[in-house]
Amino acid sequence: MKRIESTQNALVKHWKKLITTKKERERSEEFIIEGHHLVEEALKIEGSVLHIMFREDVEIPFELEESSIQIIEMTKAVAAEISETEHPQGIFAHCKQPIPSEDKYSEWKRLLFIDAVQDPGNIGTMIRTADAAGMDAVILGKGCADPFNPKTVRSGQGSHFHIPIVKGDLSEWIDRAKQNGLQVIGTGLQQAKDHFTVDAMPAFALLMGNEGAGVSDEYLEQADTIVKIPLYGEAESLNVAVAAGILLYTYGRR
Amino acid sequence: MKRIESTQNALVKHWKKLITTKKERERSEEFIIEGHHLVEEALKIEGSVLHIMFREDVEIPFELEESSIQIIEMTKAVAAEISETEHPQGIFAHCKQPIPSEDKYSEWKRLLFIDAVQDPGNIGTMIRTADAAGMDAVILGKGCADPFNPKTVRSGQGSHFHIPIVKGDLSEWIDRAKQNGLQVIGTGLQQAKDHFTVDAMPAFALLMGNEGAGVSDEYLEQADTIVKIPLYGEAESLNVAVAAGILLYTYGRR
Repeated sequence: MKRIESTQNALVKHWKKLITTKKERERSEEFIIEGHHLVEEALKIEGSVLHIMFREDVEIPFELEESSIQIIEMTKAVAAEISETEHPQGIFAHCKQPIPSEDKYSEWKRLLFIDAVQDPGNIGTMIRTADAAGMDAVILGKGCADPFNPKTVRSGQGSHFHIPIVKGDLSEWIDRAKQNGLQVIGTGLQQAKDHFTVDAMPAFALLMGNEGAGVSDEYLEQADTIVKIPLYGEAESLNVAVAAGILLYTYGRR
Repeated sequence: MKRIESTQNALVKHWKKLITTKKERERSEEFIIEGHHLVEEALKIEGSVLHIMFREDVEIPFELEESSIQIIEMTKAVAAEISETEHPQGIFAHCKQPIPSEDKYSEWKRLLFIDAVQDPGNIGTMIRTADAAGMDAVILGKGCADPFNPKTVRSGQGSHFHIPIVKGDLSEWIDRAKQNGLQVIGTGLQQAKDHFTVDAMPAFALLMGNEGAGVSDEYLEQADTIVKIPLYGEAESLNVAVAAGILLYTYGRR
């Protein structure tokens, strides 16, 4: 087993960059995960994990069968260097980003489109919620937080390994969805119906937008229907991930 | 107008304690808010604001009518001392915690009960969601994050000034709700119906629980019905604030 004792080690420097910069994540198509639950979820996906790293005082609670995965022990100082959590569990993995195959695009019947949602926690919670609601994929348009940001991965709670995540042009994706027979449901305040007046359906794409500005007009113009969630109290809006949950469970009910 | 130039000023030390310690918030029944939107919401509630504090380079964009509110200018160093946000707007208020009158308890027909939810952001998002869904009050049982924690207040987005928040004994609150004719809906996995098989209703209390452990058994035993949100994908659970949103909009639909 390999052991790393210096925070100046080249691999540690690469991990640190993967944690702190979107550029490094996009260039390498890799990311870092932290904590038992996420590492276990990653190990279920063959070929996803490159290295497992653990702090010298931690026992690894699972068996490793894939011989291609390198296990690395680290000193406490090295583990602290790559930790992003308040209460570190001392276990990490260096992973490949799952890249969905384009061959699958035409099979997807339930999609979540996200336009310019900026908060990493919101993106992660939306990925988790889309997974729970049985969606086929999440499509992130321009202006969204990086889905492989450590905060996004943490709030995704393992769903990054369950549901395909694609970065793409939402205008093209809306066209493709309509061609494939999906109902495209935008969210907005103008000319919008109360969300519960539209029934559950087997093939749809839900379009959620930026925390402040909502969905861009250009995408709303392409949508088949626009819905809003009525506000019965004095709140001016709902959190975007909460709103996505309400709508995904309204239209995706089985 | 008063001006504060030292971070050692007694008032600054009190504000800092209100930001960092639950003890100081509970002892004084006060709290600190930050940012234009929250300060504007606080000013709508007569008697809520004790001081408005702004950084010397910031212009206050609203008129102040209540003469009982003291306005305080601060140096940049003092403002930095009491800021909790990444992009500070340089405006704050020192507020009294709104204390709901016990006379109102028997009038409330829609309640959100929260058992031991620990993340301040989740508590704040649930307060915001309960406000949006037109609930009458939010009741926090033991083990919950402090609702006047700065993170909770920030994710509440002003709803702390719209909806009554009570800390109480959930077992007593469940009894009171049932006596007042509310249907008490617990959330759990054992003996639970799919949430959408229970209809919207005019008088109910929804009981949400801890992020990991869910609702305590003692409270579930008191509930009239137990529901669960079906998981169609591979996610093991939903974020508790997202789940609360789905359920509040299912049972609270008008």
